[in-house]
Amino acid sequence: MNNVQIVEVGPRDGLQNEKEIVPVEAKIQLINKLAASGLKRVEATSFVNPKWIPQLADAEEVLQGITRRTDVTFSALVPNLRGLERAAASGLTEIALFMSASESHNQKNINKSIDDTFPILREVAREAQALGLRVRGYVSTVFGCPYEGRVPVENSRRVTHALLEMGVYEVSLGDTIGVATPKQVHEIIGELVKDVTTERLAGHFHDTRGTGLANVVAALHEGIRTFDSSVGGLGGCPYAPGAAGNISTEDLVYMLHGMDYETGVDLDLVTLAGAYIQEQLGRELTSKVLKASLAARSV
Amino acid sequence: MNNVQIVEVGPRDGLQNEKEIVPVEAKIQLINKLAASGLKRVEATSFVNPKWIPQLADAEEVLQGITRRTDVTFSALVPNLRGLERAAASGLTEIALFMSASESHNQKNINKSIDDTFPILREVAREAQALGLRVRGYVSTVFGCPYEGRVPVENSRRVTHALLEMGVYEVSLGDTIGVATPKQVHEIIGELVKDVTTERLAGHFHDTRGTGLANVVAALHEGIRTFDSSVGGLGGCPYAPGAAGNISTEDLVYMLHGMDYETGVDLDLVTLAGAYIQEQLGRELTSKVLKASLAARSV
Repeated sequence: MNNVQIVEVGPRDGLQNEKEIVPVEAKIQLINKLAASGLKRVEATSFVNPKWIPQLADAEEVLQGITRRTDVTFSALVPNLRGLERAAASGLTEIALFMSASESHNQKNINKSIDDTFPILREVAREAQALGLRVRGYVSTVFGCPYEGRVPVENSRRVTHALLEMGVYEVSLGDTIGVATPKQVHEIIGELVKDVTTERLAGHFHDTRGTGLANVVAALHEGIRTFDSSVGGLGGCPYAPGAAGNISTEDLVYMLHGMDYETGVDLDLVTLAGAYIQEQLGRELTSKVLKASLAARSV
Repeated sequence: MNNVQIVEVGPRDGLQNEKEIVPVEAKIQLINKLAASGLKRVEATSFVNPKWIPQLADAEEVLQGITRRTDVTFSALVPNLRGLERAAASGLTEIALFMSASESHNQKNINKSIDDTFPILREVAREAQALGLRVRGYVSTVFGCPYEGRVPVENSRRVTHALLEMGVYEVSLGDTIGVATPKQVHEIIGELVKDVTTERLAGHFHDTRGTGLANVVAALHEGIRTFDSSVGGLGGCPYAPGAAGNISTEDLVYMLHGMDYETGVDLDLVTLAGAYIQEQLGRELTSKVLKASLAARSV
């Protein structure tokens, strides 16, 4: 119960939000540093059509360049069979599917209704499993939708169950626009864990309004032990460019260790990974631990 | 139980950390905006010797310039009888005393041992009360000391009780260097509330490592209903220049309202106050709600 798994999503969820395309070599270096810091799960890139996300068009090159390790699972976002082919050809052992809990976000993001998305993902999941790949699932807008506001927990339950039935081993519940507060996390996750075991759920919080780590604590109270985070707090909010993105891995690790949870992550090493990508990007990232660490070093 | 009091400390705890001295007029405007946002308690300045804190040397001018309101209590930090005289002459109805829970921080900050600090503060408290002023107390380094590391809760208990015996109506428990995690907040405040009623305690969290709001939630669980915060997340850490400072008032209000607590604060108005001082300072402040609000406005 005292182990927490961290899924590092910075190279994907973070870098896909950068205006400037980060050079392949910097991505490779970043991922290698993250893997060396003790993180056991790293979402390295995305096989979404490069037309939509040019920032990650170099997925194959990145996966070819990184140092593979038996103790780290690298994964990538996959939207369809074409993406799955690319992922499998890159030697990945895990992919992640994604859809939304709210109809209009799903429609805008995937260009399909929720009901029309199910069969597509089901086919990808089936093929992936036939190829021996593990499949993770993301549900976006669980805690709020940029178009619809509050999203009924019934929507999230329905999509979560549909993904689990496809054979997804874990569903990551996303606060895509970073509006959740601990009370809402308690209510929504408390409702979902009534018929899904906590081992099959992860929390994916964005810190757009500063509540990210408080939401993690609320989810811990509900029994969740897997959290997505992004080194440096990389990432942002497509609906409010300039706003803060994912919770920072450094801050998450600092807090969890202070609460006697074990993560296997070396805080100093992951903070150095944050310092590295901050320097590459040439702008100040939002991680508070990173800021404090660089400040202390300069004293 | 659903009301939370916010003590706005930005004009004092925040601006005393700015390298450049903020013009009197900007301070006055800021304080007026904060008071107009629904905040009922604003720590406006400090009567510490200007030799030590030149940033707040203009205390009298600031207090003379602001619009006094019957619904808002303005206060100032006071270290000694000389400071009390200045505060009283400025027409304040409340002052705040301060000392540390750790010996070496108290020594470095006040230049006296903890035991030698008590009689001085006792005299200031007595004189203040004789003048009809309310007296608040701060205890620094409750959750960690830059020189000693962890601070035994016994130290905080002793200093807290000493302050209450002087007639201080509320003791603000400070995470001066921003190291606390929710578990520690639960343990330390849980211990202190065994013999001090929650009405006499406030939480003063710094967000130096991103755990500020999570710590607020932990303190709420312990029954604390008063929190200090700083508009925009103004402030910093004298021990790590460049690190983040106090928790942001905007982020705190956003989270509390989302958790159905009432603060009386208008989130839009307090965010505008944050935007105002950010523009005056010419650098990006750390408040995530402020960032998100400015980002949304620019879309």
